[in-house]
Amino acid sequence: MHIDCVGILGTKKTDKTGRPKHQGCEMDDSTLSLVLFSGTDDKLNAAAVLTAGAAAMGRKVNIFLQYWALAAFRADNVLKDHGAAPEAGAEGVEHLQRHGGQHWSEIFRQAKEIGEVGIHACSLSMEMFGLKVEDLDPLVDDQFGVASFFVEVDGPVTFI
Amino acid sequence: MHIDCVGILGTKKTDKTGRPKHQGCEMDDSTLSLVLFSGTDDKLNAAAVLTAGAAAMGRKVNIFLQYWALAAFRADNVLKDHGAAPEAGAEGVEHLQRHGGQHWSEIFRQAKEIGEVGIHACSLSMEMFGLKVEDLDPLVDDQFGVASFFVEVDGPVTFI
Amino acid sequence: MHIDCVGILGTKKTDKTGRPKHQGCEMDDSTLSLVLFSGTDDKLNAAAVLTAGAAAMGRKVNIFLQYWALAAFRADNVLKDHGAAPEAGAEGVEHLQRHGGQHWSEIFRQAKEIGEVGIHACSLSMEMFGLKVEDLDPLVDDQFGVASFFVEVDGPVTFI
Repeated sequence: MHIDCVGILGTKKTDKTGRPKHQGCEMDDSTLSLVLFSGTDDKLNAAAVLTAGAAAMGRKVNIFLQYWALAAFRADNVLKDHGAAPEAGAEGVEHLQRHGGQHWSEIFRQAKEIGEVGIHACSLSMEMFGLKVEDLDPLVDDQFGVASFFVEVDGPVTFI
Repeated sequence: MHIDCVGILGTKKTDKTGRPKHQGCEMDDSTLSLVLFSGTDDKLNAAAVLTAGAAAMGRKVNIFLQYWALAAFRADNVLKDHGAAPEAGAEGVEHLQRHGGQHWSEIFRQAKEIGEVGIHACSLSMEMFGLKVEDLDPLVDDQFGVASFFVEVDGPVTFI
Repeated sequence: MHIDCVGILGTKKTDKTGRPKHQGCEMDDSTLSLVLFSGTDDKLNAAAVLTAGAAAMGRKVNIFLQYWALAAFRADNVLKDHGAAPEAGAEGVEHLQRHGGQHWSEIFRQAKEIGEVGIHACSLSMEMFGLKVEDLDPLVDDQFGVASFFVEVDGPVTFI
C-alpha cells in the first residue's frame, strides 16, 4: 500500500474537467479517535476505510468499540453477515455485496500494518455483553474505560 | 444571510429567564470535515444546517460523500423522498414534512454561496454504485479517494 | 465519582496479559462538542457515557440537541422507552435492559455535577416540534441556533 498524497487509497484528485489539482501536503497530524458504535457491515466498512486513509496519511488512529460494533468484533462473529443500515434497501445491499471491496476486518488489518492503529474495547460494553478480551478478534488490542479512552484523545472524535 | 454571531441561522441566545447571554466571538477557525454516510432526509438536513452554520461563522467545510449519502446526491435523486431514520416514526415524519424548513439541497447551495464549502464524492463509493461525477448534482465539486480527503482535514471530523 | 486517569468510569487499562500499561496524562483539553441527533436509548446512553468520560477528564462538553434526541429530552418523555437502533435486535435489547447500567438521563446529571457540561436545544428543531424550553427536562440549559452553537465549538464536533 503506497503512502503518499494520492496513494492506492485515493484516485488522483480531478475536477469536472479531469485536470488534476495541485494539492499541498501540510496536514493535521493529531490522532483520529473513532468511537465505533454501529455494527452493520456498511458502517464498519466506512470506518475501516477512514482508518486506513488516516493511517496512510501518517495519523495515529485510536478506536473505541462500543455496543453493536463491539459485538461485531467477537472472534466468532467477525466474518458473519451483519447487514446494513435499513435505508440501504435491497438494491443497496446488492451493491455492497457485489462491489463493496474487501471485508472491513481485512482493511483494519492492513491499516494496523501501515500505521499506528489501536483498537480498544469499551469496558462497559464488555460487561453488558459478558465478554472477555479473549473472546474478541485478535484485531482488538485491549479493553478499558471511557476515561482512559479520553486520555488518548488528541484531535477529532468521530462517532460511527 | 447575515454572518454574525447570532445570524439568521440562530435565534438570539437566551436562558430560561429570556435574558440574552453575553457571548464572545473568539472561535476555532479550523476546517469542519463532514463524512456524510447516511442518505435519509432528516440526517441530510441536519448535515446541511451544520454546514450552513459553520460556513456562516467563517469556517471552511470539507464534505466527503459516501454510501447512501452519495446516492442521495445523484442528479436524478436529490429531490426525491429519502425517508427518515426508523426511530422518527410516523409522527416524526409528519413534523419533518410540515415544519422541516428548506430542502437540504437548497441549504447546501446557500452554504456554498456564503462560505468556502467543498463537496467531494468518495471514489470507492462511486465505484460501488458505478457512478461518474456527471451523474451527480452540480453541488458536488469532484471526486477523490479517502487519502486525499485526509489531506484537507484540519480540525474536527464529523460522521453523519 | 473519581476524577483521575482511570477513575470509576474506566477499569484499569490492561493488555491481553493483564499487565497495566503505563499511561501519561498530557491531554487535549479542548471542548468536546456533541451534536445529538438520535433519540434511541442505546445512542443516548453512549452519548451520556462519552460526556461523563470527557467531563471526568476535565474537558468542557457542549451539547446541541436536534431532531429525535431533542424529542427524547421532553420533560414528559425522558424516562419512557425510546427503543434501540434496529440492528440491536431482540437479543441486543435484552442485553441493554438487563445490563445497560444507569439511565442516560442520570449519567448526564452526574456529568453536569462533575464538570462543565452545557446542554442546548437547537432552535430549528424546537420550532419543528413546537416546543418551548419549559417543555424540556431541566437538564437542558437553554436553546439557540446553529451559528451560536459554533461560537462555542473549540475542538472535536461529534455527531451521534
